[in-house]
Amino acid sequence: MPESGAELRVKRLRAALESGRLAPVQRLLSSLNPAEVASLLASLPTRERNLVWDMVDAADNGEVLLHLPEEVRDELIQQMDTAELVAAAEDMEIDDLADFLDSLPETVTRQVMRALSDADRARLETVMVHDPATAGGLMNTDTVTVRPDVALEVVMRYLRKRSELPLHTDALFVVDRYGVYLGTLSLERILTSDPEQLVQKVMDRELEALPVSLPAREVARRFQTSDLVSAPVVDDQHHRLVGRITVDDVVDVIRAEAERNLLSMAGLDDLEDLFAPVLRATRRRAVWLGLNLCTAFLAARVVGMFEATLEQIIALAILMPIVASMGGIAANQIVALMVRGIALGQVGSGNTGALLRKELAVALFNGLLWGATVAAVTWWWFDSPMLALVIGLALLLNLLLAATAGLLVPLGLRRLGADPALAGSMVVTTITDVMGFFLFLGLGTLILL
Amino acid sequence: MPESGAELRVKRLRAALESGRLAPVQRLLSSLNPAEVASLLASLPTRERNLVWDMVDAADNGEVLLHLPEEVRDELIQQMDTAELVAAAEDMEIDDLADFLDSLPETVTRQVMRALSDADRARLETVMVHDPATAGGLMNTDTVTVRPDVALEVVMRYLRKRSELPLHTDALFVVDRYGVYLGTLSLERILTSDPEQLVQKVMDRELEALPVSLPAREVARRFQTSDLVSAPVVDDQHHRLVGRITVDDVVDVIRAEAERNLLSMAGLDDLEDLFAPVLRATRRRAVWLGLNLCTAFLAARVVGMFEATLEQIIALAILMPIVASMGGIAANQIVALMVRGIALGQVGSGNTGALLRKELAVALFNGLLWGATVAAVTWWWFDSPMLALVIGLALLLNLLLAATAGLLVPLGLRRLGADPALAGSMVVTTITDVMGFFLFLGLGTLILL
Repeated sequence: MPESGAELRVKRLRAALESGRLAPVQRLLSSLNPAEVASLLASLPTRERNLVWDMVDAADNGEVLLHLPEEVRDELIQQMDTAELVAAAEDMEIDDLADFLDSLPETVTRQVMRALSDADRARLETVMVHDPATAGGLMNTDTVTVRPDVALEVVMRYLRKRSELPLHTDALFVVDRYGVYLGTLSLERILTSDPEQLVQKVMDRELEALPVSLPAREVARRFQTSDLVSAPVVDDQHHRLVGRITVDDVVDVIRAEAERNLLSMAGLDDLEDLFAPVLRATRRRAVWLGLNLCTAFLAARVVGMFEATLEQIIALAILMPIVASMGGIAANQIVALMVRGIALGQVGSGNTGALLRKELAVALFNGLLWGATVAAVTWWWFDSPMLALVIGLALLLNLLLAATAGLLVPLGLRRLGADPALAGSMVVTTITDVMGFFLFLGLGTLILL
Repeated sequence: MPESGAELRVKRLRAALESGRLAPVQRLLSSLNPAEVASLLASLPTRERNLVWDMVDAADNGEVLLHLPEEVRDELIQQMDTAELVAAAEDMEIDDLADFLDSLPETVTRQVMRALSDADRARLETVMVHDPATAGGLMNTDTVTVRPDVALEVVMRYLRKRSELPLHTDALFVVDRYGVYLGTLSLERILTSDPEQLVQKVMDRELEALPVSLPAREVARRFQTSDLVSAPVVDDQHHRLVGRITVDDVVDVIRAEAERNLLSMAGLDDLEDLFAPVLRATRRRAVWLGLNLCTAFLAARVVGMFEATLEQIIALAILMPIVASMGGIAANQIVALMVRGIALGQVGSGNTGALLRKELAVALFNGLLWGATVAAVTWWWFDSPMLALVIGLALLLNLLLAATAGLLVPLGLRRLGADPALAGSMVVTTITDVMGFFLFLGLGTLILL
């Protein structure tokens, strides 16, 4: 598979830095857009990252910072002085600025606020009162509104006078004189309709506005199910228009959620920077390893309960990792399915029972198949039909247990408000490990001694 | 955490079905858009899914099928007769139709083709020659083009005469008389500029067209880094406009890739339907379990090499799962980081060395920390300083190995054209398991006997 453009850029850039030639670096940087520069910075070790960051065009600083992973952004912000930070904030859109201010030290925030116009400050404050993980936190307040009782002709004259619209404006919003949202007037409609028509005749009343408190995840789902490019946001009580959300911000939500699911199944924070400082990365991973060490000692404790059995039948010690490992693999498959299902809103109390029946049936068939296989190999290896029976039975039981735990634990965790991906794989694997050893050694003690 | 709207719908629907009342089901269905109906169908067990599918408004059939996971779609298609399938295909956009035809039996495909107008058939054939995983496979051919040397006034008159534009049209494309792409004219520009201006004065020449053979993943990256809503697609040789890609299709690509990464780290197919028939689900999971069984026997074989040691020191049998398990956990963290980094194009041969140095340092610190902890607990438990030394040292070495394998294996697999998420976790966990047992028991034999 050939390397992608982004990877080749990293290679070229680091080669140039190594040989001390800065002109090619400068040329490369000026050929990239801010998001590409951000991705490039995220691919670099800290020292080189700082070097390249100093070479980024100051006018792009704000945009580049916004596209960086949070941890990298915070790191670079710490090296900028107040004047640079205020300058970087100046060109941002209001919703982006609200995110950005969250990363800044208090003193700089105040300076940035002072540098804003009164109107912008008021708009910023509107956005900042909302939870970032809701429609209110995602929205921008730069909506263009029209009244229902004017002719398209008038709207067109107005637009021409403005001579510019906010980024990603594909529609104007129609509001009454109290600001209550009535409908949407797409630019396409304006251009394809008779100019003498009234706005209320051609506007789209079907496009529902999003309540300002709608969770970001739900916003993303609405955009996906209705193929939206932008959507109006209204306050919860009076249905008054307060802003709009554009698809580019929603794409970020979708990507971030997917990343979070992937990383948290491995016990990682979604902030994790590729080149996080060694001590910080160590500390973060250490928590997960430490928790796992506790569960590993728990498993060892269970094995220790059967010390007398192991002393008599050493074959049990040799074979015991198999049952635990197969249980862990089966459980992780189901946890992954459940994490996806929960993210898509396709799994919940409405179908838990039916899913459990299906997964238990799958586990039963796979348990019979692989239990028999394991038993056959064991019989051949250790020439003991009873040992073969023990391991085959233990494997079957552990797969059934893996199905039950893999399905119910993520759902239970979510109901408790915990992240099903993060805690799920840990809890479920602990169960299949501990029970894998217990079932195998317990059955061994019962049947073989 | 409260259940989402989608989950409540599943619950209500199944309750209604159970009690045999079809009127509420019908009401619920007609209140949903096709994507929501699709998500609902995907949440239902097979029998109920078929029942509900029959109640979906036939006019929506095509749209609903398109939004279903591939496996569910194929299942429902098998139950439809040719007339129904042709009807479902009729209202589709060309790019969607091309995807849809891939799922249909040959005879139906021919019938659908015959039912199309000549122009639509020609457009369909243009799209179908391209690999679905490229810009050509994602694009739609319904572009609206204008010439550079006409006035905006004329463009506006033309649009008004058309009275409708293709879905998600936020811009027209400017081409010369050979169809070569020159630039983009956004609807916003048309509305905010002086109508007497020429197209070439106000068009955007900066927006680069996507080559028709650009991989879908790269298309998604361009949309994200440039915050695009739609983009022109041109042929590879002559730069002639052949179609356009809209953001809604790109969102699907982004989501599908994220899902694939999540599921394949657990050895699952991304087609996996929640309610796949039991035998099919069994067969799919069986492959992964079978592969894992081979690696588990390999690990057991390694343990078996040390049978004589285990017979003398049973404590080694009790503790041996700890070293393997910690190695697996550490390795999976790095594999997850690498899978994300590869997906974002931030990891490659340009920074492998620097990453490896960082990860080895992290593994060293965590190995020292948890190696010492494990040693202390072991000393206290078994009252043997030498056993403590053995397990601490084995843990440290296995974490260093996990870092190396977790980093290099996914990169190596990708270079070979294999999926780093799918094969990566399996190969790396095998290495840390086998080597975990080998290091611990090997060191035990050397030091304790």
